Amino acid sequence: MTPRTLPIEPLTPEAFAPFGDVIAARADAKTFAINQGFATRFHDLARVDVGEEGGAVCVSIFQARPRSLPMRLSIMERHPLGSQAFVAMSELPFLVVVAPPDTVLDLGAIRCFRAGPGQGVNYARGVWHHPLIALERPSDFLVLDRAGAAGHSNLDEVDVQNALLWVWN
Amino acid sequence: MTPRTLPIEPLTPEAFAPFGDVIAARADAKTFAINQGFATRFHDLARVDVGEEGGAVCVSIFQARPRSLPMRLSIMERHPLGSQAFVAMSELPFLVVVAPPDTVLDLGAIRCFRAGPGQGVNYARGVWHHPLIALERPSDFLVLDRAGAAGHSNLDEVDVQNALLWVWN
Repeated sequence: MTPRTLPIEPLTPEAFAPFGDVIAARADAKTFAINQGFATRFHDLARVDVGEEGGAVCVSIFQARPRSLPMRLSIMERHPLGSQAFVAMSELPFLVVVAPPDTVLDLGAIRCFRAGPGQGVNYARGVWHHPLIALERPSDFLVLDRAGAAGHSNLDEVDVQNALLWVWN
Repeated sequence: MTPRTLPIEPLTPEAFAPFGDVIAARADAKTFAINQGFATRFHDLARVDVGEEGGAVCVSIFQARPRSLPMRLSIMERHPLGSQAFVAMSELPFLVVVAPPDTVLDLGAIRCFRAGPGQGVNYARGVWHHPLIALERPSDFLVLDRAGAAGHSNLDEVDVQNALLWVWN
């Protein structure tokens, strides 16, 4: 394969729609003034999907080491039984690498978005994604995914090192 | 009533246990090395409770204006049908003012904790709490609570201005 550099796209709800939700104080969200005017609620920003087989929402933190760019993509994974959301607990950017939820990963359809401060993502069920790409320094991410009954695998993985896909700031 | 200043306590899982969960990379959490060593998962940090009456998890953002200290507590509220979690999307501290989930708010049992960078909270169902007290500058908080069927009120409120309870950094 020929090495290829993925363009880094801005993360907008429209561009990301095929892959899930952008969790942010979005202009198109329902908003309510609350707390005697001390806050605005941007309501119901993600479709949390824990599947039909007895799943529940699991709240975890991923403590991430930063990657340095340029970096070669190593692996793509997906969760066939539920959605997975990532929200930074800092104002650091991170990269979001995704592909459509086809049964077989389409290497040509991989895209890379840059989440800025105040932006998180929720991968829809089955959407292929690269493991978390934190930047700059170690940071914590709140993660919402599916706690499921034992015996159901909720992870598919594909090694993509040989595809020679690079991201470069 | 005599004015009273609430001491600001450090937020630890043990001290906060009567009120809910501390969402943080806790020393007592189950951890897993993931992402080829690029992250550690701190697993299952909050008991998300959406009740029995057809509730679902709702992911929202509260965009908060900072309070200035000293401040007098204005109101205490609680959600009788589900839990509510707050995680800062910045590394700014915030204050967490809570009281036990008795039917009637016990003014003498109100406590104030300081959540530092990397710490969020999940109020257990029915726990009394003051509206969000952001500090320093405007900031976004990820909020997980209950999206319920219409017709079930999930909010009780008590005006506490006359109790003359103050917090002072």
